[in-house]
Amino acid sequence: MSAVKSKQILLASRPEGEPTSANFKLAESEVREPGEGEILLKTRWLSLDPYMRGRMSAAKSYAKPVEVGEVMVGGTVAEVVASKHKDYKPGDIVLSYDGWREYALSKGAGLRKLDPKQAPVQAALGVLGMPGMTAYTGLLTIGQPKPKETVVVAAAAGPVGSMVGQIAKIKGARAVGIAGGKDKCDYIKNELGFDAAIDHRAPDMAAKLKEACPNGIDVYFENVGGAVWDAVFPLLNDFARVPVCGIIAHYNDTALPPGPDRTPMLMGAVLRKRLTLRGFIVWDFAAQEKDFLRDVSQWLREGKIKYREDVVEGLEKAPEALIGMLKGKNFGKLLVQVAS
Amino acid sequence: MSAVKSKQILLASRPEGEPTSANFKLAESEVREPGEGEILLKTRWLSLDPYMRGRMSAAKSYAKPVEVGEVMVGGTVAEVVASKHKDYKPGDIVLSYDGWREYALSKGAGLRKLDPKQAPVQAALGVLGMPGMTAYTGLLTIGQPKPKETVVVAAAAGPVGSMVGQIAKIKGARAVGIAGGKDKCDYIKNELGFDAAIDHRAPDMAAKLKEACPNGIDVYFENVGGAVWDAVFPLLNDFARVPVCGIIAHYNDTALPPGPDRTPMLMGAVLRKRLTLRGFIVWDFAAQEKDFLRDVSQWLREGKIKYREDVVEGLEKAPEALIGMLKGKNFGKLLVQVAS
Repeated sequence: MSAVKSKQILLASRPEGEPTSANFKLAESEVREPGEGEILLKTRWLSLDPYMRGRMSAAKSYAKPVEVGEVMVGGTVAEVVASKHKDYKPGDIVLSYDGWREYALSKGAGLRKLDPKQAPVQAALGVLGMPGMTAYTGLLTIGQPKPKETVVVAAAAGPVGSMVGQIAKIKGARAVGIAGGKDKCDYIKNELGFDAAIDHRAPDMAAKLKEACPNGIDVYFENVGGAVWDAVFPLLNDFARVPVCGIIAHYNDTALPPGPDRTPMLMGAVLRKRLTLRGFIVWDFAAQEKDFLRDVSQWLREGKIKYREDVVEGLEKAPEALIGMLKGKNFGKLLVQVAS
Repeated sequence: MSAVKSKQILLASRPEGEPTSANFKLAESEVREPGEGEILLKTRWLSLDPYMRGRMSAAKSYAKPVEVGEVMVGGTVAEVVASKHKDYKPGDIVLSYDGWREYALSKGAGLRKLDPKQAPVQAALGVLGMPGMTAYTGLLTIGQPKPKETVVVAAAAGPVGSMVGQIAKIKGARAVGIAGGKDKCDYIKNELGFDAAIDHRAPDMAAKLKEACPNGIDVYFENVGGAVWDAVFPLLNDFARVPVCGIIAHYNDTALPPGPDRTPMLMGAVLRKRLTLRGFIVWDFAAQEKDFLRDVSQWLREGKIKYREDVVEGLEKAPEALIGMLKGKNFGKLLVQVAS
């Protein structure tokens, strides 16, 4: 196989507040044929996830930012189309991290082979991948829900939130989900078995949440921040655990919101209620990956875990899809089908 | 023995902001002679501690407030002066919780006999009591300092802070203390062996703290809040632990301080740095009391732990002493010697 033309999407400029399509640029490059020990990967699926907003900023975080002019990063499921590597042959499907592009060269580092007979391959980007493992490790290691306790999660129709609620149910806890709009609320209650669903767009959201949590909140899985955190905070029980995996409501903030400084109030409650707040990144718990794959594969087979995908066709649609996700427009795990 | 006259100090009114002497009232009552199964206790030592400010307010907390007109609460070391209880005889010294009064009746519940040969009996209110155990359990269970890590604590010349720093040193960590004024700073550095001492009254306190923590902060034992927390916060390392046992800088707050809402900033750092913030009350770790007494008794015998007392003579002085403590005027564990 000779060199191939590969479309790719670059970070064109850093966003101020909400990203716009002007922050992205479609480009084409040529990818040479693989050398000794290399393989050529053709992207089938690209995962879109909230953390990507962080990578677009220059601010210091737990991972280095994408530089302007570089290809946007992201998890991918790809097919081996040419190989000079002893462990891979054309037709193999792998989990990779090639970013927003059609083709990529690899030396095999960090790849995981996927078996299409076990599960649809793109599940490795969702329920059996990073979002699923974020829910599994954060909820079980930090949240530690006990039977009959109340677990609350926002973005509850999304790939992380939907897993948090379903795993909470498997562990015997009550699951209360917060989601945007009637369709998502119906889905988490009727399809996923959450005990209650609250629409965060309702003007009386805080009152509704209180009503749905008559015994208070024992675990709050924090992935949004903002008004949801404000509503959850006074309902936290003594000894509540708050795994903090994201604050998507603030990812587009350019300045701190106005209002009184509530930090002393927060620290006062941490003390008085003996709260544990603990931040985590899924890879802090990399050692739990085998447990995660074993348990979630079994729960999928038993029908105890369900999931939903929101598929966009074509790499060119990725920027618009990511911009929409940050506004809550997707419904289910957001995937770009780059090639079929 | 017949009935005795007993001076006692009542909560006269609830403070607005800083307590004043008008919030207290000296009164006298008669305590009857003990009935069957009862003992009469004469208070020798009364402990004054920051949590007492919380009990003066009506606000909900982890313990119920003192009602207006009731005797102020507090830990005491007392002598048995009359007994109709099979386990106690006159002359026995006990740790009790009789509050701000000269005499009290007891049925023996919650008392612990003290051996004057083991340690000065008033140590049971300090280094071998609640403040010492607060430092021991919070630092070791939540803070978990590792060798060479940096542990920071404020109010470092006080009974909790001085123990936190000394136990950190015993565990091989670096101890950085923050205290008010040159005398206290000299004491923690020269007498207690802290690696560095920062005067919180210095205008460049934050810069000095940064200089004293060239490798950042791994454990911050939070007992003050306010400007110290602001200075510590940006220096926290990834995976830092923050046991929260008090925020004395805010105990007299009547309203939230002005300024931007920093909660999103706090939660963003909890996520990005994978911080653990966890509140605790010493009695959450009651099961560790034996370990605490064993370890600290041994460290005292070995000279690895030193402590300092700040003694006020006479029950009438207790209000003024408590008011002063909330302003940082004491130097060492604050005790009222009610009788000798």
